Amino acid sequence: MAKQPPTLMDSIVSLCKRRGFIFQASEIYGGIGNTYDYGPLGVELLRRVKEAWWGAMVTERADVVGLDSAIIQNPKVWETSGHVGGFSDPMVDCKKCKGRFRADKLEDARCPEKPSKRPGECDGELTEPREFNLMFKTHVGALEGSASVAYLRPETAQGIFLNFKNVLESSRVKPPFGIAQIGKSFRNEITPGNFVFRTREFEQGEMEFFVPPDEDETWYKHWCQARFQWYIDYGIDPAKLRLREHDPKELAHYAKATSDVEYEYPFGWGELEGIANRTDFDLSRHSEATGENLVYFDPQTKEKYTPFVIEPAGGINRMALTFMIDAYEEQQLEKDTRVVLHFHPEIAPITAAIFPLVNKEGMPEKAQEVAATLRKARFSVFYDDKGAIGRRYRRQDEVGTPFCITIDGETLANDVVTVRHRDSMQQENVPIAELVPYLLEAKGNWKRP
Amino acid sequence: MAKQPPTLMDSIVSLCKRRGFIFQASEIYGGIGNTYDYGPLGVELLRRVKEAWWGAMVTERADVVGLDSAIIQNPKVWETSGHVGGFSDPMVDCKKCKGRFRADKLEDARCPEKPSKRPGECDGELTEPREFNLMFKTHVGALEGSASVAYLRPETAQGIFLNFKNVLESSRVKPPFGIAQIGKSFRNEITPGNFVFRTREFEQGEMEFFVPPDEDETWYKHWCQARFQWYIDYGIDPAKLRLREHDPKELAHYAKATSDVEYEYPFGWGELEGIANRTDFDLSRHSEATGENLVYFDPQTKEKYTPFVIEPAGGINRMALTFMIDAYEEQQLEKDTRVVLHFHPEIAPITAAIFPLVNKEGMPEKAQEVAATLRKARFSVFYDDKGAIGRRYRRQDEVGTPFCITIDGETLANDVVTVRHRDSMQQENVPIAELVPYLLEAKGNWKRP
Repeated sequence: MAKQPPTLMDSIVSLCKRRGFIFQASEIYGGIGNTYDYGPLGVELLRRVKEAWWGAMVTERADVVGLDSAIIQNPKVWETSGHVGGFSDPMVDCKKCKGRFRADKLEDARCPEKPSKRPGECDGELTEPREFNLMFKTHVGALEGSASVAYLRPETAQGIFLNFKNVLESSRVKPPFGIAQIGKSFRNEITPGNFVFRTREFEQGEMEFFVPPDEDETWYKHWCQARFQWYIDYGIDPAKLRLREHDPKELAHYAKATSDVEYEYPFGWGELEGIANRTDFDLSRHSEATGENLVYFDPQTKEKYTPFVIEPAGGINRMALTFMIDAYEEQQLEKDTRVVLHFHPEIAPITAAIFPLVNKEGMPEKAQEVAATLRKARFSVFYDDKGAIGRRYRRQDEVGTPFCITIDGETLANDVVTVRHRDSMQQENVPIAELVPYLLEAKGNWKRP
Repeated sequence: MAKQPPTLMDSIVSLCKRRGFIFQASEIYGGIGNTYDYGPLGVELLRRVKEAWWGAMVTERADVVGLDSAIIQNPKVWETSGHVGGFSDPMVDCKKCKGRFRADKLEDARCPEKPSKRPGECDGELTEPREFNLMFKTHVGALEGSASVAYLRPETAQGIFLNFKNVLESSRVKPPFGIAQIGKSFRNEITPGNFVFRTREFEQGEMEFFVPPDEDETWYKHWCQARFQWYIDYGIDPAKLRLREHDPKELAHYAKATSDVEYEYPFGWGELEGIANRTDFDLSRHSEATGENLVYFDPQTKEKYTPFVIEPAGGINRMALTFMIDAYEEQQLEKDTRVVLHFHPEIAPITAAIFPLVNKEGMPEKAQEVAATLRKARFSVFYDDKGAIGRRYRRQDEVGTPFCITIDGETLANDVVTVRHRDSMQQENVPIAELVPYLLEAKGNWKRP
């Protein structure tokens, strides 16, 4: 049988490991299921995605403030939110091999001892389905026992509802306004997969936007549109994006309407982000459970109401993976092919690579000077003096570096460097004194090729 | 008895709640011991501290790369690191009230039922001391039981050692080089306290700097000095800082030497950050436990060695609290007093506040335009059109906003605004077109008053 060419996902996974984007967690210990660590380029990619999200959702907006709530909250929070009672999957156990499987996904499962068989089709007998809660449980404090049980949050959203009143009283906000948060959440998923698309430990970007009850549909439309556009603004191919409204049967118990921003992944269309109209469900439930008044009183109109909530919620890791998949191209050139990641310059882990043309004649020293200047201006810079210049370009193309800056004889004579652009491969001469503003402007003018 | 004036810590805690820096977590559910949420200003303060740390430790350095490893790693990692066996406090239980107390801190403890008494001095009898592990335990995956036990990491450092080889192979680094990480860690502390100085859930900034074994002392000195200077660069009063070398008896089992950067808190001198020479302890242990070769081979000198590690490690939340305490002043002015936080402009949660002088005559519209321009340039901006201008200044002084920008008749006529500086309270006229570069330069030129 002929060897199959690697699929796009295989190429991405391989690139991630080879170039230091993403590694299997605890790899030297044989790993731990479905958990990943982000290497030097991966952590910079995550940082850029978070910065782009926070910039658009908080810093640039007059009507949104930020928050950072704890991962471990009072366990009663999750009773009120419905997670203790209802955040579960139906599971069956194999009485023979003790494997546990999702009852509604048995067709996709395999017997751990006889991987050619499905559970139940081997010798093992399956139990009746039982509900298996997806929250990670732990114990807090000195006393063990049920009194000290606590959970790792399965979503950051509840931390926002808990602080609604504190923010209202401390921060001069009034509906319509939002509270945004980036942070880790944890779900003990039984069938995670597709690399970092779904993992047990993941980072969320969530925003709860509190509005007068009669403005919920207007704001729901606003946020569906705004979040869809955000992905396009940061370079995602619009032809691979769609906004899909949930069928009423799909809706979560708290939602009046939900739309998913979906992306066409190599493994099919998948959710990139969800925008939900959560109504006044959460504030009302927390108010009932605690006796706390979570009603908004408008001092001008004298109206009292429990705000409705529009929630755009996406996974930061999934966004990063999507930016990578979408940016990836194996490009046929005249004489060879190159792998290139066409990242938006604000998303690219390295902004500028600095090359001395040859490793002598004072060029390395001059190149280090240029690198130091850019680092001081807080550009993410990679210095490389190894190998032919063409190979150095290819190494940077593969990780999506938008600008390669070469120091040559002209630099030593006249303080002029050559800036080579990743997508067009065109080169321009730029005086060192103008390099920082030149790069800032080039970042701002970037267009998806 | 005369009413006592509030202590500095009381004033800070009160300011944090009132202005939206820090709230008690799950407050509407009665809280959860020693856990805090960061409000709109608190999250921006944390973001600035992290950005300042990452900028100095990664972006500006040619010899350090970043990493973001998972919180839940393979549990064997913590056996190797010594945390499963040794990361514990000796605890005694009261047989009557079931309270649990640190055996070595009984003098500071109080009986939960009779708070005037120490444990053991009430009617309760205490058990013999037993070791109580400080790691939070949970279960991962579908199968329960000891096979799936996992821990929330008590430090981010081990995630770096686990990826030493992956980073070496993917990222063109060679000793001396560092791997830096910011992330949450968890310790089930029995006696936390002093507000956010010590909490069970906290964010760390850690860097492992790998060096040839014979360069360890040079680099240890380098990092002690560099980390001490970082706090001064960001405005901390040098008179309240000291570098204290650990006594040999204080040293952790893995450390050849350790120095603490200490700060003089209202409750006494306390550790702000530790710089440790961890030798080759961790890499050697992980290599032994996994059979993985974690030796560095230098292709030029043909030398082989297990690098020594210098580790600067600090708590981000503690840094943020320290910046606040150090910046706090109740300043006596000619006619009144003001509370002012003298934050470094790169640390201040709000960079610029925008005030229309009066709420009419087109000033609010013009002020909103100026605010939008600054937001688009990703400045953190607060718009305020409420109350007398003097009161608006005071509100911003109290949260440390370095620049207040007033839009008045002069602005409407000539596009010139008034910039008022927090520390000196001096005012300058600045054309709107020059506002962004003016603020950037003023940030750069800031000096501790």
